[in-house]
Amino acid sequence: MTNTVKVLDSGSVTSPKGFVAGATFAGLKTYAEDKLDLGILFSQEPCVAAGVFTRNRLRSPSVIVSEEHLSKGRPRAVVVNSGIANACVGEQGYKDAKAMAEKTAIHLGLDVEEVLTCSTGVVGVELPMSLIRNGIDRIEMTKDGGSLLARAILTTDPGPKEITVSFEQEGSTITVAGNAKGAGMIHPNMATMLSFITTDANVTRDFLQQSLKESVDGSFNMMTIDGDTSTNDTVLVFANGAGGASEISDGSDAASNFKAALLTVCVELAKSIAFQGEGANKLIEVVVDGARNLSEARSAARTIAGSSLVKTAVHGNDPNWGRIAVALGRADAEIVEEKIALYINDVCIMEEGRPIPFHRDSIVALMANPRVTFRIGLNLGNAEATAWGC
Amino acid sequence: MTNTVKVLDSGSVTSPKGFVAGATFAGLKTYAEDKLDLGILFSQEPCVAAGVFTRNRLRSPSVIVSEEHLSKGRPRAVVVNSGIANACVGEQGYKDAKAMAEKTAIHLGLDVEEVLTCSTGVVGVELPMSLIRNGIDRIEMTKDGGSLLARAILTTDPGPKEITVSFEQEGSTITVAGNAKGAGMIHPNMATMLSFITTDANVTRDFLQQSLKESVDGSFNMMTIDGDTSTNDTVLVFANGAGGASEISDGSDAASNFKAALLTVCVELAKSIAFQGEGANKLIEVVVDGARNLSEARSAARTIAGSSLVKTAVHGNDPNWGRIAVALGRADAEIVEEKIALYINDVCIMEEGRPIPFHRDSIVALMANPRVTFRIGLNLGNAEATAWGC
Repeated sequence: MTNTVKVLDSGSVTSPKGFVAGATFAGLKTYAEDKLDLGILFSQEPCVAAGVFTRNRLRSPSVIVSEEHLSKGRPRAVVVNSGIANACVGEQGYKDAKAMAEKTAIHLGLDVEEVLTCSTGVVGVELPMSLIRNGIDRIEMTKDGGSLLARAILTTDPGPKEITVSFEQEGSTITVAGNAKGAGMIHPNMATMLSFITTDANVTRDFLQQSLKESVDGSFNMMTIDGDTSTNDTVLVFANGAGGASEISDGSDAASNFKAALLTVCVELAKSIAFQGEGANKLIEVVVDGARNLSEARSAARTIAGSSLVKTAVHGNDPNWGRIAVALGRADAEIVEEKIALYINDVCIMEEGRPIPFHRDSIVALMANPRVTFRIGLNLGNAEATAWGC
Repeated sequence: MTNTVKVLDSGSVTSPKGFVAGATFAGLKTYAEDKLDLGILFSQEPCVAAGVFTRNRLRSPSVIVSEEHLSKGRPRAVVVNSGIANACVGEQGYKDAKAMAEKTAIHLGLDVEEVLTCSTGVVGVELPMSLIRNGIDRIEMTKDGGSLLARAILTTDPGPKEITVSFEQEGSTITVAGNAKGAGMIHPNMATMLSFITTDANVTRDFLQQSLKESVDGSFNMMTIDGDTSTNDTVLVFANGAGGASEISDGSDAASNFKAALLTVCVELAKSIAFQGEGANKLIEVVVDGARNLSEARSAARTIAGSSLVKTAVHGNDPNWGRIAVALGRADAEIVEEKIALYINDVCIMEEGRPIPFHRDSIVALMANPRVTFRIGLNLGNAEATAWGC
């Protein structure tokens, strides 16, 4: 990250100027202590929005409605429920997602196409629309509502995940904030990943979409192996320009700062999800450098971080570098065995493809840390990537 | 399977005529009760051989030597050790694999190129060649040695896996037999899959290689998701024609019977590996039918069988069909949500993409069986595939 991006101690998606949010308990979520389960995020100013959606072939109609409305180019609000995914429910699912957007549009005084929809929770259950309609009516939109929204999107997550950063542009402070949910393997049927990001930067729609795609590829998509998608995964960003600085597009002076800020938000949220994933209080970070290109660096890092072999080694505090080498060997990345180096928390345990004798006890002690970093040097090129697992 | 293939109650790779085998404890395997760790399989007659090897980019030199010798077209023996994988050991690994083949060739009175090599066990450790040389000298080749070999290849497997089948050709009984090892997720660093198959059928080399490839694709490669390979995975088949029937090539009268016999051997071994995989005494069988083509049927079946979501559901005896649908959605297979049907042990729980109300208790009782079968109907074509998980 560039040091021009400042990570704030606190904040929420209503920290950037011009955003309000709110949440309520509609009665959808019966299994969590914190029962907020329906929320709305809204930009009081017209804004531009961008989104990245699940690659699963089974898609919730809530995702389909969001894509449709996003393609119209005018969204400035999102309504989200937790507890029920609105997936695998036949034609009714699309009608319900559309009705959620309509009810929210009336509540906020918008057109229906200005509202996006997200759902997360169990699949195969229809949304109880009367509860949702009543719930939407009760939601009070406030400048402090961001943290309520961060709670309302959770399913089995141990807690809310929020991050706020800022950077300076032409003397103005521009803020980017985000929240996320994404429960791990304990309840994998609810492992949908949702993230909502807001900014008072003034950016063009194309640049926003491109920046979001790049940030997601370098963060949320590096949390797990490629295929690990659900029916509802969604990342949305809204940019309303209320920060008062000039428009940012590809090549603008402020473009790199904005991209760095957005990437920081996505990376920190992804790390929070990985850290909370199994309730394991352990974050595995895998850095691959020296790859021939970015795509191969990412594939190698993701394959190792997602390897059940490697996870077993870390949770057993077992410095078995052989497992890491074998996982690397099945990634979609060129390797030359005699050039591979491997470090665990900065201690070299393999060089030129061969193990280095090490004190097993000292590595075991390192691996008992809540954060374990593997660095793999391929020594074939200059590309680097980082992935996270739990 | 065709009913012309008969599964025998007992047998080993020395059941087909003209094969002998033997094994000894060389001192490589310290962690298992049954300490046979070095074995040889040998066809007393000249024979044809075929092999399928790991797709991992990190390959044991033992695999490389086998591929080299196989390409010369004359192999009729294999020497195999367990305990040490001979992987990630630099240039010494190739020398050691070659030396193992040379020593075995002298022991059997063969040329070195007539001997293949396999290793399985921990990576990063050099083979103790003096122990191996001494061990090879001690191995007595006998007609009863097949079951010793089946034990000598094990690492952390709960027990040996063997299968023998026969079919009739021109009044002669032709036998095909195989053994395998492949430990599961408890000790994933030793999860190399090895399988040795023998037959006294008289087959051409091209037909043998093609039949083996097809059989492996429909069996061992359906045990897990694609990428799940180790440095040493090897399947070898030797056919010596000692059964006395006429030569089989593509299109011969006996070709389909031979293919069915070979596939039966591979499928039964794959199921045994899956069943023993986690020591869980539970076999998950996933049948996908109605796919557009075989490749998509296989991808769908493998993705579901390999899904940690589905495994969690089965081990929790939890009939959560939603997890199966979500896993299906990330396979490389065309699906139409409204056409999907899902059966658990023949009970329909999803039809036309929507859940069918069912008595949860009765499905939970079904899933408590040691064998749980999911059948997914895509209703888009005629292709079908089966995958196994544990």
